[in-house]
Amino acid sequence: MEALRRLPGIGPRSAERIAFHLLMAGRQEALGLAEAIQRVKDQVRPCSVCYNLTEQDPCAICTDPRRDSSLIVVVEQPKDVTAIEATGLLRGRYHVLMGHIAPLEGVEPGDLTIDALLARVRRERPAEVVLATNPTVEGDGTAMHLHTLLAPEGVRVTRLARGLAVGSQLEYASSAMLEAAIAGRGEM
Amino acid sequence: MEALRRLPGIGPRSAERIAFHLLMAGRQEALGLAEAIQRVKDQVRPCSVCYNLTEQDPCAICTDPRRDSSLIVVVEQPKDVTAIEATGLLRGRYHVLMGHIAPLEGVEPGDLTIDALLARVRRERPAEVVLATNPTVEGDGTAMHLHTLLAPEGVRVTRLARGLAVGSQLEYASSAMLEAAIAGRGEM
Repeated sequence: MEALRRLPGIGPRSAERIAFHLLMAGRQEALGLAEAIQRVKDQVRPCSVCYNLTEQDPCAICTDPRRDSSLIVVVEQPKDVTAIEATGLLRGRYHVLMGHIAPLEGVEPGDLTIDALLARVRRERPAEVVLATNPTVEGDGTAMHLHTLLAPEGVRVTRLARGLAVGSQLEYASSAMLEAAIAGRGEM
Repeated sequence: MEALRRLPGIGPRSAERIAFHLLMAGRQEALGLAEAIQRVKDQVRPCSVCYNLTEQDPCAICTDPRRDSSLIVVVEQPKDVTAIEATGLLRGRYHVLMGHIAPLEGVEPGDLTIDALLARVRRERPAEVVLATNPTVEGDGTAMHLHTLLAPEGVRVTRLARGLAVGSQLEYASSAMLEAAIAGRGEM
């Protein structure tokens, strides 16, 4: 129960329920979970090219010849790769920073995979780097830092658009959302 | 109670509570509300220029010489004027459509103040018309219709940006939001 309680979103009651479930479950089900956890920890590691989590190195996206090698999409976390892949709109390759710059939390640029990104851009010479960091203070700061580093390399650096959430109503938009939507308004 | 229950957001319990409050309140408070409602209905009407609700005609924004007369911001409802005014970023004038085109609900272009907008653009020759309709199916359709009408007039027609909500996390963004953010990505 103590080990289960350390998992995100699992409180004492859930931990107890899961623990009793495992105790009562068939030996195969319980050991199946234990083995899956062991396998994940043994076999899943960061891709040596893009730092996304993978069982094979380089990962399936980095080695897929159908992906557009002239486009690198920079994200903060492996979860963000999943979110962008779900849209099917950016068929390039990724670079996972493994976080964002946050000096107050002690995360400096050197703690992220920024050096590897810079080396990769110099080596691969992509046509476009999309900075898909979160639209938060830390994500914006990280994007600014990356832009400063990448601009001298002569690569086109773009950022995901921010503005009104599609399907939302203007009257319920936050002031920050409206400001971004006004500042970013464009020709139709 | 029946009259109160027709107000938005007021259910039977609230209506009962308000009704008893008015019965127990001083004569002045209760009649003050009645008079305020009468005054609003007598004195507030659409501005003959921009169709925003106003007590004076033309409204305070249309007659304010400090406002930029070369910019017209087109919105669906008077509430949207309030939301955009709160940002302080668009210091032009407004045009309130009084709804959006929605054929399924029986709202045709002729039911909105579109003819008046077109006449106004021809008369005032603004430099820019910002289409600030909602980022919904109806709002987008209305914006497309307006763009078709306004483009031949030689005016610059822009639309509020859509994309990631500022302060949000990529991993929680809806697919539609991510798609808009990717499609609208721009140079840093």
